[in-house]
Amino acid sequence: MSDINQFTITEAVKDSFKTEPGSRFETLLHGLLDHLHDYTREMQVTHEEWMGVLNFLYDCGQISTPERHEFILLSDVLGFSALVDMINTRGGATEGSNLGPFYLDNAPEKTLGADLGDGREGVTVLVYGKVTDSLHNPLPGAIVDTWQADGAGTYPIQEQEMGQDKMDLRGKFTCDESGRYYYTTVLPKPYTVPYDGPVGRLLRAGDRHAWRPAHLHYIIRHPGMAAITTEIFFENAEYVDNDAVFGVRKSLVARVKPAKNVAELGFELAKKPDAMFEYDFILAPED
Amino acid sequence: MSDINQFTITEAVKDSFKTEPGSRFETLLHGLLDHLHDYTREMQVTHEEWMGVLNFLYDCGQISTPERHEFILLSDVLGFSALVDMINTRGGATEGSNLGPFYLDNAPEKTLGADLGDGREGVTVLVYGKVTDSLHNPLPGAIVDTWQADGAGTYPIQEQEMGQDKMDLRGKFTCDESGRYYYTTVLPKPYTVPYDGPVGRLLRAGDRHAWRPAHLHYIIRHPGMAAITTEIFFENAEYVDNDAVFGVRKSLVARVKPAKNVAELGFELAKKPDAMFEYDFILAPED
Repeated sequence: MSDINQFTITEAVKDSFKTEPGSRFETLLHGLLDHLHDYTREMQVTHEEWMGVLNFLYDCGQISTPERHEFILLSDVLGFSALVDMINTRGGATEGSNLGPFYLDNAPEKTLGADLGDGREGVTVLVYGKVTDSLHNPLPGAIVDTWQADGAGTYPIQEQEMGQDKMDLRGKFTCDESGRYYYTTVLPKPYTVPYDGPVGRLLRAGDRHAWRPAHLHYIIRHPGMAAITTEIFFENAEYVDNDAVFGVRKSLVARVKPAKNVAELGFELAKKPDAMFEYDFILAPED
Repeated sequence: MSDINQFTITEAVKDSFKTEPGSRFETLLHGLLDHLHDYTREMQVTHEEWMGVLNFLYDCGQISTPERHEFILLSDVLGFSALVDMINTRGGATEGSNLGPFYLDNAPEKTLGADLGDGREGVTVLVYGKVTDSLHNPLPGAIVDTWQADGAGTYPIQEQEMGQDKMDLRGKFTCDESGRYYYTTVLPKPYTVPYDGPVGRLLRAGDRHAWRPAHLHYIIRHPGMAAITTEIFFENAEYVDNDAVFGVRKSLVARVKPAKNVAELGFELAKKPDAMFEYDFILAPED
């Protein structure tokens, strides 16, 4: 019989999978085995350490429910979600960022100029900009699908038991003939990711906080263009330099300014804004 | 503000953890981030692929219970458990192998020569050998803690609802003044690891079987020596060349022979064996 040792076992495990040569499954599996077996060897991992890892994953599984995916949270706080967003950003397009756990694909359609704040307390901000291609050609009819936390850092979907409507603070806008979108809403506040589970324990072990800087979520779509999922942040805002989930990129940050000369923009607004915030999205063509 | 991209994010994530420089926690964490971020970049992992990984872990969590640890099973079938066993085997000592899920630390003490078969059907085999140090000095009083499946490949602990006693087919023997252990038992049969969950899906995706070759489990202890956890296998037995969890090493395989000249061994046996199987264990000193 053939023998295996700590250096030959990696090939033995790969060989045990009868994968199609060159298939994506084979590539992903072999790469994972190479990297994680190397890690285990390089670190000379002990039984106690390895069981610590496996029991940590077990604990993540035990706290997970259809509403709470602790493995996504783990991926977020270790920068994997951000890294996958970065890898999959197309050249010339707005950078991608976290989808997060609160997206609903059936948000209500809203009219340009509507107020998305749904009566929540806080600063009313005019959010506006253009959706274009990378040559700055406007993309009329582009869909701006947005959702956000309120002025206390809470998503209505998190407080449905307290009578909040999960569809509040979210909506789909259709850009006008100049590719413009505009609406007013309440300026969101920072909030924490859940830290009462194993991922929270990990954060505490590294003396890390669980805060995300305030942000607006977006999915931007247009026929023939690759959709982008991203978040927009506010310059100099709290936690914008140390987001717990590494969602911030410089290109996704813009300044909130006092509302000034709003009439000159020519928007018909349902509510008078205190502040204004401009951000243009750029889409790249689909493959 | 500073910016991050797909090449700088790894250091940013490391820096976010305020770990003690040079601590084991830091070493393990940084190493894991280096390897798995590199993997994600090298593979240019897509969102769908990454969510596939996270949902696979979620599914492993959902099927796990205090009695079923799907993450250990995952570690087993991907060779990590075997690799950790190999890394932690001491020079000169018997090679380590899987602890498995069925160990109980309060197995009954048995007298040398007792029958461990507890009336189970199958081949009665005399199991015997010595426990020594690496210079072949016997270790009298060494404890041989053993457990095994029956002649149908089942552990009694798995069939408690069907009236089986979980303490059957397991026991602790104390080696005699020559470091010898000996007992009779039923020759175990192969069995499958659980394959009705996500790990089973992974095995099927790679056209792999879930069988383990028949084996005897052991933990061997002696004061002043490092305990070993291992398994012993039977030469030419089914699945001994393709164990689903990579537990077999050449040094852990020995031949089952017809019982012959048993009287010459000088053992007082409770039951007459059909076959005999000799294996010597070697312990290395504690640190």
